[in-house]
Order: sequence, then structure tokens, then C-alpha cells
Amino acid sequence: MYKVEVIVKYKKGILNPEAKTINNALRSLGYNSIKNVQSGKYFELTFPADLKKSEVENTTDEVCHKLLSNPVIEDYTYKIEKEQE
Amino acid sequence: MYKVEVIVKYKKGILNPEAKTINNALRSLGYNSIKNVQSGKYFELTFPADLKKSEVENTTDEVCHKLLSNPVIEDYTYKIEKEQE
Repeated sequence: MYKVEVIVKYKKGILNPEAKTINNALRSLGYNSIKNVQSGKYFELTFPADLKKSEVENTTDEVCHKLLSNPVIEDYTYKIEKEQE
Repeated sequence: MYKVEVIVKYKKGILNPEAKTINNALRSLGYNSIKNVQSGKYFELTFPADLKKSEVENTTDEVCHKLLSNPVIEDYTYKIEKEQE
């Protein structure tokens, strides 16, 4: 089984109101040791073990581009792990 | 500088309508090689380098519990990395 962890973040310079709100909340709760919080989305994709790693990569790229992120304002990164079932 | 990556996921058994929708969309787009998709939230916390690792851990735990997750329905995991500035 392949486990693919995808993280989708806003591109630099894109306003992220959720992160702004969290940063403000941390200030008002007194957590001044935290310099900054960024937020994003997390996805975990599961593929069967009989696929090649390159097939997993290609499908992940396609799905990230078409479905899981908005390429105009978001970037994605992923890492693939092969796990024992 | 410490970089802490937090992932917040629904607990097992909690209905996740976003993940359900993504799984349905993948089926209708013909991505049958993907067995399952889980979704969650991602946060990146930045702490100054002069803190002890235990302080970073304690603050992260508190913030995850109070602000970044709903402990009734969500679980969180995090990993701490120390980076050169």
C-alpha cells in the first residue's frame, strides 16, 4: 500500500484570512512565543501496493492539480511512503 | 528557528463530508487506482530559536488543544524541526 501525504498551501503573497485570524487569536491569548502560524489543507491518498511508484506520482500530480488545489493561488507538496499492509 | 508542522484529522468514525465528496469526485473522474482519500487541516507554527524544545512542545500542545483542533472530534499530530535562520 502506498500512502501519499499532500499539503496544499497558499502561494506567497496570497492573503490567508484563516491564518490571520489564528495569529490574532494567539496574540490575544498571550502566546507571544509563537512568531507566526500558516495554515493549509492536508490530504492522505491511499494507493494499492501493486502500482509502480511513477504511476503513483503521476496520478497524485494530476489529482492535486485538478481537484485538491487551485493552481492559481495554491501550491502543493507531497511525499510518498510505501507501507506494509 | 523552530518549525512545527501540525496535522489535524477527524477521529476514526467521525463523518467527513469533504473527504466523501473528494472520493466521489475521483470515482466520476475515473481515478480508480486511488483507494481512499482522507482530508484534514495543516498548520505551520514558527518559534524563535532561543526557546528550549520542551517549551516549544508544551506551547504547541496547548495551542493545538485550545485553538487549532476540536478535541471532541479531532486528533492532532505534530513534528518539530529546528532550522537555521
